[in-house]
Amino acid sequence: MRLSEVESFLSKVSGYYVEDLKTLLKQPSISARGEGIDGCACMLRDFMKDAGFRVEVWKIGDANPVVYGEMPSNSPKTLLMYGHYDVQPPEPLEEWVSPPFEAVDSDGKITARGAADSKSNVMAIVKAVECYSRLEFDLPVNLKVLFEGEEEIGSPNLPRYVEMYRDKLKADAAVCFDGGLDPKGRPELWLGLKGMLYVELKCRAARVDAHSSLAPLIENPAWRLIQALTSLRSPDGTILVDGWYDDIRVPSEEDIKLIEDVDYDTLLAGLKRHFGVDRFLSGVEGVEALKKLLFQPTCNIAGLYSGYTGLGAKTVLPREACVKLDFRLVYDQNPYRLLESLRRHLKARGFDDIEVKALNFLEPSKTHPSASIVKAVSSAASEVYRSKPQIYPNSPGSGPDYLFTKRLGLDSVWTGCSPPLSNAHAPNEYTTRESFLRGILFAASIIEHYGGLDW
Amino acid sequence: MRLSEVESFLSKVSGYYVEDLKTLLKQPSISARGEGIDGCACMLRDFMKDAGFRVEVWKIGDANPVVYGEMPSNSPKTLLMYGHYDVQPPEPLEEWVSPPFEAVDSDGKITARGAADSKSNVMAIVKAVECYSRLEFDLPVNLKVLFEGEEEIGSPNLPRYVEMYRDKLKADAAVCFDGGLDPKGRPELWLGLKGMLYVELKCRAARVDAHSSLAPLIENPAWRLIQALTSLRSPDGTILVDGWYDDIRVPSEEDIKLIEDVDYDTLLAGLKRHFGVDRFLSGVEGVEALKKLLFQPTCNIAGLYSGYTGLGAKTVLPREACVKLDFRLVYDQNPYRLLESLRRHLKARGFDDIEVKALNFLEPSKTHPSASIVKAVSSAASEVYRSKPQIYPNSPGSGPDYLFTKRLGLDSVWTGCSPPLSNAHAPNEYTTRESFLRGILFAASIIEHYGGLDW
Repeated sequence: MRLSEVESFLSKVSGYYVEDLKTLLKQPSISARGEGIDGCACMLRDFMKDAGFRVEVWKIGDANPVVYGEMPSNSPKTLLMYGHYDVQPPEPLEEWVSPPFEAVDSDGKITARGAADSKSNVMAIVKAVECYSRLEFDLPVNLKVLFEGEEEIGSPNLPRYVEMYRDKLKADAAVCFDGGLDPKGRPELWLGLKGMLYVELKCRAARVDAHSSLAPLIENPAWRLIQALTSLRSPDGTILVDGWYDDIRVPSEEDIKLIEDVDYDTLLAGLKRHFGVDRFLSGVEGVEALKKLLFQPTCNIAGLYSGYTGLGAKTVLPREACVKLDFRLVYDQNPYRLLESLRRHLKARGFDDIEVKALNFLEPSKTHPSASIVKAVSSAASEVYRSKPQIYPNSPGSGPDYLFTKRLGLDSVWTGCSPPLSNAHAPNEYTTRESFLRGILFAASIIEHYGGLDW
Repeated sequence: MRLSEVESFLSKVSGYYVEDLKTLLKQPSISARGEGIDGCACMLRDFMKDAGFRVEVWKIGDANPVVYGEMPSNSPKTLLMYGHYDVQPPEPLEEWVSPPFEAVDSDGKITARGAADSKSNVMAIVKAVECYSRLEFDLPVNLKVLFEGEEEIGSPNLPRYVEMYRDKLKADAAVCFDGGLDPKGRPELWLGLKGMLYVELKCRAARVDAHSSLAPLIENPAWRLIQALTSLRSPDGTILVDGWYDDIRVPSEEDIKLIEDVDYDTLLAGLKRHFGVDRFLSGVEGVEALKKLLFQPTCNIAGLYSGYTGLGAKTVLPREACVKLDFRLVYDQNPYRLLESLRRHLKARGFDDIEVKALNFLEPSKTHPSASIVKAVSSAASEVYRSKPQIYPNSPGSGPDYLFTKRLGLDSVWTGCSPPLSNAHAPNEYTTRESFLRGILFAASIIEHYGGLDW
């Protein structure tokens, strides 16, 4: 078995590989504000070269670079693996137990922004290939990898990269390595991702801030914004924009069957414990909660601000108010059409004073459970983690999976090696040495299984 | 005429007095966060000593000091003048044309936080008395002045100071020098002030920030807060809390007569121009707009924040959301009782997850138009500004006037020498040399008229 040779080799070099991961984690790469992106792409390119890849750094205009690598083989099959090297902003900084870009390693727990989402996934692929190179094994499949630097801002330029390099990206299937393990340590496989429409709504009233004694006469933009927001969503989470639900396809029978196979009690109990809540929105429980999580579109307030937000009291009537909204979309909602619905909704209710700025768009995606890449990833998961993986017909999260399914016409599975409840997008994000090293084996096993040597 | 001798003397020393004002403006004194308060009190005490006052600095516990001064005379009458040396926070800093504590003087326009509200008023009183001292004139009235350092946070400790120094503060009438001129340059006299209830509402949901993909299940505290806020106020400004309007006394016949005498078209057109709005809330106009401004209680959002407020997109489900609300109250609403009404309102609607923290309380006040101090200030205004003052039965703003009317039992007039539309509480607050110097004469003329020498 080649995988056991990889495992044996890995046990000798694991210390070095963990150090390389920490090096990558110490390099900021915050796409929301362009911090450290080029440096991170450059560092990743070097790690890939060292691993044996033929590497290209793609760059279109001002877009963050894509780092692309190939490892050819004699196999007729080609697998495309996707990851992202950019990270979320680390704020609020004061809630971190150690600085977000120091990658402090405490008894094998490595705390850093991007530790789980998704630099440990990226490095798992790179190091899997490095094992093959060092062992002088041929790959059982042509491998192409694409690491982008804009996933956390909604991959705004990846559609252009995919269009421009369409020929290079030809493959038979895709694996997006940007996920992880459930609370019981079983790998999660997502056969589709939610889409996303991210907008900023801004309301401006007076030309300047006013003394709040003028509140009987001067419109307060925060109150206006709240009125507009209240018109968008009911307290149970239902989105009130006309036509919002029109294009949604109800979950198929196969989808429902997969959902019923999920160990949702463990999943839901883990979420409640981790977030310190004793009930979910609207009191939903059990399989219904899981269905909502996977198949309900949402309108989330990600940020909200107006006026004086410092300590103590200031009696001001602010001149503007702003909200950041992320709408998660389910198959087959279209973010571009829904943006127009949102604008029409506000206009029809007289909110002409509210400016709508779209920050990003992602379409939802879907792969059928019977696809051969689903079988390959599932077998690899069972082999490496010694437990049946949790296969979800859809993910609560979003990503550019639609570029592989809809644009390149590939079956695609979204998975990865992050530890359970890893604080992705929140303070104190972490991974563990163990999760990372097992992730390297998982990536190798996926390549082996898809290459067909072991099944 | 003694006032013309004051005026003549003032013309010789005006340059020095303006420099002294600028010195006071350069000293921060932000009560909302305790910045520079003691230094400002100390500086003010020295200016008052130089002016000839017998000065005491009062200090109770952690409260900001009160600077108290006396100028006795042989008159049987005693006038108490009030002012405040603290200022609002200067944020947003990026909107200032010059730094808020540099007091840049450009062709006689002095831009600084506190220039209008209210250090030029405070210094006008001090310098008026300094003129008497230098000219060796006796005052025609016993003068007591009280300058506090917490007006901008709602004078939370002034009730204790007034109680403790009740005997010292005995007087026949009060003038609160913390106002200014209308858009046509006429002094405004307020015969009552609105009260205030300032609260912070905070909603906490999960223990930590979450990835926004969990929005179908985890309650978003910003949405909760918005639901609570929507229950408090209708879009036309009506407050929906049970019993909020119960204690309001309708404006009297004298009040309405005073309102009809106001040049409200000029006032309202000036407000629209300054704030760049083409209509007022609910489209109200003319005398009805003025009535709303003076006699309507309000619920204003002074600050609002949740989640990610930086540049670009972050897909987070925040763990908390917070709003700062100032409720302006009219005669004879009680802020302590209304706080209880607010708590009951939220509780009755199931908002137990919203924490209510009261930051300050001010009761509304009222003085009858026939009071002799009203006549004295009105005559002084006519003399110094050569135009009939605008007398308002009530102010849209708030202050601790109730301590003089309700606690000390005095008639009280709120007035001052700030220039029109001075950006109080907003960026680029300013006064002018001319406004300040005329304010010194106004203060002197009030003292003269109330002392009875000239009428």
